[in-house]
Amino acid sequence: MGGDFGPRVTVAASSDALKRHPQLQILLVGQSDAIRNHLRRCRGKHLQRLEIVHADDVVAMNEKPSLALRNRRESSMWKSLELVAQGRAQACISAGNTGALMAMSRLVLGMLPGIERPAIVAAIPTLKGHSYMLDLGANIDSSAQQLLQFAIMGSVMVSAIDRRDRPLVGLLNVGSEDNKGTGCVREASRLIQGHGGLNFIGYLEGDDLFSGRADLVVCDGFVGNIALKSCEGLSKLLVRKVQGSFRRNPYRRLVALLATPILRELKRQLDPGRRNGATLLGLKGVVVKSHGGANRTYFGYAIDQALEEARLNVPALIADRVAVEVARCRSDGVDDVASHSKN
Amino acid sequence: MGGDFGPRVTVAASSDALKRHPQLQILLVGQSDAIRNHLRRCRGKHLQRLEIVHADDVVAMNEKPSLALRNRRESSMWKSLELVAQGRAQACISAGNTGALMAMSRLVLGMLPGIERPAIVAAIPTLKGHSYMLDLGANIDSSAQQLLQFAIMGSVMVSAIDRRDRPLVGLLNVGSEDNKGTGCVREASRLIQGHGGLNFIGYLEGDDLFSGRADLVVCDGFVGNIALKSCEGLSKLLVRKVQGSFRRNPYRRLVALLATPILRELKRQLDPGRRNGATLLGLKGVVVKSHGGANRTYFGYAIDQALEEARLNVPALIADRVAVEVARCRSDGVDDVASHSKN
Repeated sequence: MGGDFGPRVTVAASSDALKRHPQLQILLVGQSDAIRNHLRRCRGKHLQRLEIVHADDVVAMNEKPSLALRNRRESSMWKSLELVAQGRAQACISAGNTGALMAMSRLVLGMLPGIERPAIVAAIPTLKGHSYMLDLGANIDSSAQQLLQFAIMGSVMVSAIDRRDRPLVGLLNVGSEDNKGTGCVREASRLIQGHGGLNFIGYLEGDDLFSGRADLVVCDGFVGNIALKSCEGLSKLLVRKVQGSFRRNPYRRLVALLATPILRELKRQLDPGRRNGATLLGLKGVVVKSHGGANRTYFGYAIDQALEEARLNVPALIADRVAVEVARCRSDGVDDVASHSKN
Repeated sequence: MGGDFGPRVTVAASSDALKRHPQLQILLVGQSDAIRNHLRRCRGKHLQRLEIVHADDVVAMNEKPSLALRNRRESSMWKSLELVAQGRAQACISAGNTGALMAMSRLVLGMLPGIERPAIVAAIPTLKGHSYMLDLGANIDSSAQQLLQFAIMGSVMVSAIDRRDRPLVGLLNVGSEDNKGTGCVREASRLIQGHGGLNFIGYLEGDDLFSGRADLVVCDGFVGNIALKSCEGLSKLLVRKVQGSFRRNPYRRLVALLATPILRELKRQLDPGRRNGATLLGLKGVVVKSHGGANRTYFGYAIDQALEEARLNVPALIADRVAVEVARCRSDGVDDVASHSKN
């Protein structure tokens, strides 16, 4: 029911996804009248694999997460997460209120043992293809221990999704020298460095984010959110500048016409919608957040992302890895990954 | 002597600047042999307004600021700042080690009364032209009180340089609602909001950085540095993608040929070198940092920036404004802007 377009986009994208994936089944959770209304425009046998689960209530996009948590237990968001908790669904996809989705996911699904906080991870484009970055805003600030947990969770996910053996992990900082950054970042560097299971390449500066040097970039949610949104803002500025530049006079408009396929391709590459689908990692279940403004095609990418993570069972992979490490740490007599060490 | 190219760029750019500005005089501080060597390539009467001040030593680009501060008192950097402190020069321009320049500036020039820490401010491109942003990395973390001081200093500078009466001030955050962000950011918002002399428009998210909604964007140096460098990284990625896109086949290479003036213009607009020259605000003197990789033309922009700030005497304008406010706060019986209130 969420996002800027509600069931108009989510219903159509679900129908497309069922066509793409012959084994997929979808439960559409929300106000059944509205859903049925949009389903009328879809046709085909694939719709037999689609089921409506009615939910009376909807979480508003600007609702305070704490209030949604208290008052919206009959909402489509809450009910979708319950379906995952009950094992009736293997993943939840939402284009709704991110804060509410986070808060409800923690309560309904719960955190994996050994993980303190969820983190939002998403793919970013690089010179070499793509990398992943977390946390993109699930948390306002994170301890060094939590940054280590993000590195572990992200590594497991990148290994599974991209079939990479030991993904390269970088830590976002304001310089590459050891003495740079906050105490928390330096401590996180020490923890990640000292962790046998992670392939740590050290600090990354902002301008290395898109170089592809790291397969996984770790940072706290405040910095990650601002850095990525700043880049979105820059992309918008550039698209406008390119459009303006190619429209200034008749000669330029002619060149623009000749360059149409190139410009269209560039616009597509620039479009963050292509990488739609951010994962809430650390939960006992797959939860994928679509951008609120995603269209039918882009919402489909979020569905595909969730499907892939459910197929691989990423939460179980993370739980296994953390369990092994907790056991190893305990036998070594050192603090385990679940221990709190705020600084 | 600093930067990636040393006197090769700084000497040539100085000669150009003397031609542009008939009233300008330049003191070139550094190893006189090296400087003279590069001066040999320049000709003209304007060179009479150029003087060499010999300095034996040079601060290395990767030297730890604390060590430079202790060991490099005979360096070109230290001596340049001394010339400003003595009133022999009205501004210092360096392409060298940023951390060392900061540390030496604080010691040699000193901070303005009422300002705890310097901040790095620079222009960023926007849909409407340009805005300014600070702090871009002078500090690793900043208290709410320091963020308020950044807002005051930045406002004074934007007012003077862009001749704007009450520049619009935004505070960078992960959301626009009151309850978003760290305690420090929320407290800074309260302080800036409550400050009669500032035209505060509230929180800005990353994607608003380049919209031009604010004339001045305030943030701590950790976030500011990473956000801006991330955008530089994205720019590099995009230039590479555009180049690749226009080279893929003979038809595209032909279109690229026709589009040459447009692509050249876009590349120039994308180039961060055009906005070269970041100011260290809060000091008792004008100090401008050029990008280490700046070429002759771009280093010239940093000289022009310093010249303009010296002409307007930005440090005195800031000192005046802060003095008025300290007096007002004291008569009101509230904490003055210089008081420490870390949180």
